[in-house]
Amino acid sequence: MALNKKPIRGMKDILPSEMQIRDYVIGVIKDTYGKFGFTSIDTPSVESIANLTNKQGGDNEKLIYKILKRGEKLNLADAAREEDVVDSGLRYDLTVPLVRYYSNNAAQLPSPFKALQIGNVWRAEQPQKGRYRQFMQCDIDIFGEPSNLAEIELILATTTTLGRLGFKGFEVRINDRRLLKAMAAYSGFPDEVHDSVFITLDKMDKIGIEGVEEELLKNGLERETVEKYLELYRKLGQEQDGVAYLERELEGLLDTSVLEGLREIIESVRATRSCEFEMVFDPALVRGMSYYTGTIYEIAIPEFGGSCGGGGRYDRMVGKFTGNEVPACGFSIGFERIIMVLTESGFQVPDKPRKKAYLIEKGVGGQALCEIIAKAQEARKEGTQVLVARMNKNKKFQKGQLQAEGYEEFEEFYKEALKN
Amino acid sequence: MALNKKPIRGMKDILPSEMQIRDYVIGVIKDTYGKFGFTSIDTPSVESIANLTNKQGGDNEKLIYKILKRGEKLNLADAAREEDVVDSGLRYDLTVPLVRYYSNNAAQLPSPFKALQIGNVWRAEQPQKGRYRQFMQCDIDIFGEPSNLAEIELILATTTTLGRLGFKGFEVRINDRRLLKAMAAYSGFPDEVHDSVFITLDKMDKIGIEGVEEELLKNGLERETVEKYLELYRKLGQEQDGVAYLERELEGLLDTSVLEGLREIIESVRATRSCEFEMVFDPALVRGMSYYTGTIYEIAIPEFGGSCGGGGRYDRMVGKFTGNEVPACGFSIGFERIIMVLTESGFQVPDKPRKKAYLIEKGVGGQALCEIIAKAQEARKEGTQVLVARMNKNKKFQKGQLQAEGYEEFEEFYKEALKN
Repeated sequence: MALNKKPIRGMKDILPSEMQIRDYVIGVIKDTYGKFGFTSIDTPSVESIANLTNKQGGDNEKLIYKILKRGEKLNLADAAREEDVVDSGLRYDLTVPLVRYYSNNAAQLPSPFKALQIGNVWRAEQPQKGRYRQFMQCDIDIFGEPSNLAEIELILATTTTLGRLGFKGFEVRINDRRLLKAMAAYSGFPDEVHDSVFITLDKMDKIGIEGVEEELLKNGLERETVEKYLELYRKLGQEQDGVAYLERELEGLLDTSVLEGLREIIESVRATRSCEFEMVFDPALVRGMSYYTGTIYEIAIPEFGGSCGGGGRYDRMVGKFTGNEVPACGFSIGFERIIMVLTESGFQVPDKPRKKAYLIEKGVGGQALCEIIAKAQEARKEGTQVLVARMNKNKKFQKGQLQAEGYEEFEEFYKEALKN
Repeated sequence: MALNKKPIRGMKDILPSEMQIRDYVIGVIKDTYGKFGFTSIDTPSVESIANLTNKQGGDNEKLIYKILKRGEKLNLADAAREEDVVDSGLRYDLTVPLVRYYSNNAAQLPSPFKALQIGNVWRAEQPQKGRYRQFMQCDIDIFGEPSNLAEIELILATTTTLGRLGFKGFEVRINDRRLLKAMAAYSGFPDEVHDSVFITLDKMDKIGIEGVEEELLKNGLERETVEKYLELYRKLGQEQDGVAYLERELEGLLDTSVLEGLREIIESVRATRSCEFEMVFDPALVRGMSYYTGTIYEIAIPEFGGSCGGGGRYDRMVGKFTGNEVPACGFSIGFERIIMVLTESGFQVPDKPRKKAYLIEKGVGGQALCEIIAKAQEARKEGTQVLVARMNKNKKFQKGQLQAEGYEEFEEFYKEALKN
């Protein structure tokens, strides 16, 4: 078989110009989250297939890269199903591995535990522009903090990071799963249709309230219930203070702490944010993952079509590993989308070092070469980036290439000149 | 199936204390190699199975994590061999992906191209202390530089990095594949036994010259040839200038540029090194990979048992992808061993930020909470790391944990005090 130059379908080689931006963004992320007390951790890219297919990952579980058993454990002849031949897979997100990590290492971790994890995940999705089968995620999570101090800190840390990267005018939208359920119950939807109702509600942004109405009716839901439900949303659209309106409407259907909590998060973030953005209550925000148990939130940036990160509270996932529930709350930033916007907008990494190229004629060696290298070593020690290279036959083309890489100063060394 | 808290066999969770050291080391590596003009790149973790099993990887090809085909391409019922059910695998090193990357993107890369790649690789080896099935490699490579300027720059960059990490008194050993072959030919070994002879020679460090003699004879090689071969090594042990000795002995059997090149590398590195280390000629150095075509080298650090990185010239691998050979030369640093030595020696990351913890009594909310968070935001802006957390019931234990994380300053906020 011939060797194949192309990366495997749906994955990509990262060129130096993009890599510079990625490294810079990761640096800003680590520094900013660090100031909020988040500590970096890492988990293996490979997880047991049992952990990856336990319904924590929703539809992502259909997209797993599965890894073949090895050695005696593999018996292809008798294999009937995929489960017979695989024992592990590549992680499709960072949340399941993180919760496993916390469950495994809690005794050695402080409480609350504030984790930052940046790493690749893999999903065998249909490739399309800007969507790859290997991509980087960047999550912060807090374990052991039941109060909404967790949400406030997560939102502040994430928005501070975005601000430092030059984004502005964005919006953080927040809602609560328990509120979603209370609104559905208030309207008369039975429990078992809630998830289906929320899937439709989630499209409000795209299809409008009329589209939502149409789809709910098409799904066979009672017209009266649908009308009562959407009337709530229509009224909310007219109210100045949506939280207060719902406090009145849903009285008795919802623990008062839910709406009080939302109000406190919104007000605290508004009062202490470190850059310009809107913090808004969005009663139609759904977020797909079924593991959320309380608050949910996401970020919308005008430069992006849709959301650029989000998260929520998931107080029951640790219990699935350990039997003991631990409050947990996270925020994932849309790393690849940020990189795409910065790359396409011609973003230049600040504070690049001074860059010099030494071009040495072929044949310069011995003592003369030593002197040139020693000079380069001196300049490097002083902080200059120095490329030492042989002069190519087409020197003009070589210099052009190097200029494109940011080299602005050149020194040339010839055999003859050095002999003198 | 119950969820499993443990990482998958042979892989590990990285705790915050180790992660701090890893992040620091990666920072030093990127900064130092950057000064030498190496640019960061990245390749997917997954490669096509054809590229991974094309005999570039030697024994590592037996250790590949193979990935199951997906969708219609997978036909388990008719599958007889592994090749029928897999289409890709996890990379076992960074060299094969890098050469594919260079072959794929050369038109967009400068010449010479100096690449830095830091990333995980996977090998299904028997786990043992300090050896994991997922581990990080850190390689620098130069494409398009036929002269030994490549080797000089690679060795200087690598040793400068080690020096900045506090290592000293180490040794860089260098040899050349062509010299190894000339010495074997000089002694009378036919071409077809050279690889087997080198496998034995490679054990010189462990079993001594007598051990090598014994094994070569046991392998059925002629006593006379073995004696002539080992006599060369015995004499080399007594010579002050081994290179000069071999220039005399091997005259006519080896292109003179090989030994001249080695001498030039050794002398240039000695003259321009930026920290204390020995640069020595080691005619018994073999290095396992069959793709090397010229110089080979490795680093030995007294704190480690064996080698802590190495590399060499491999001028023929690009040709396997593109049909056109391009000079290539690389140096891989033993990242995980460096981390292990630093971790075990109690290494402390320098220049950590000032760390403060604000502990807030349960029930403090509203305006009072806003004021505390605003104060934290101010301190963060000035560069202090501030953890804002609820006070646990056992405050003393919580503070003890935080002290272990490096928090030395505490501020406590109570409901009552704030009301005044």
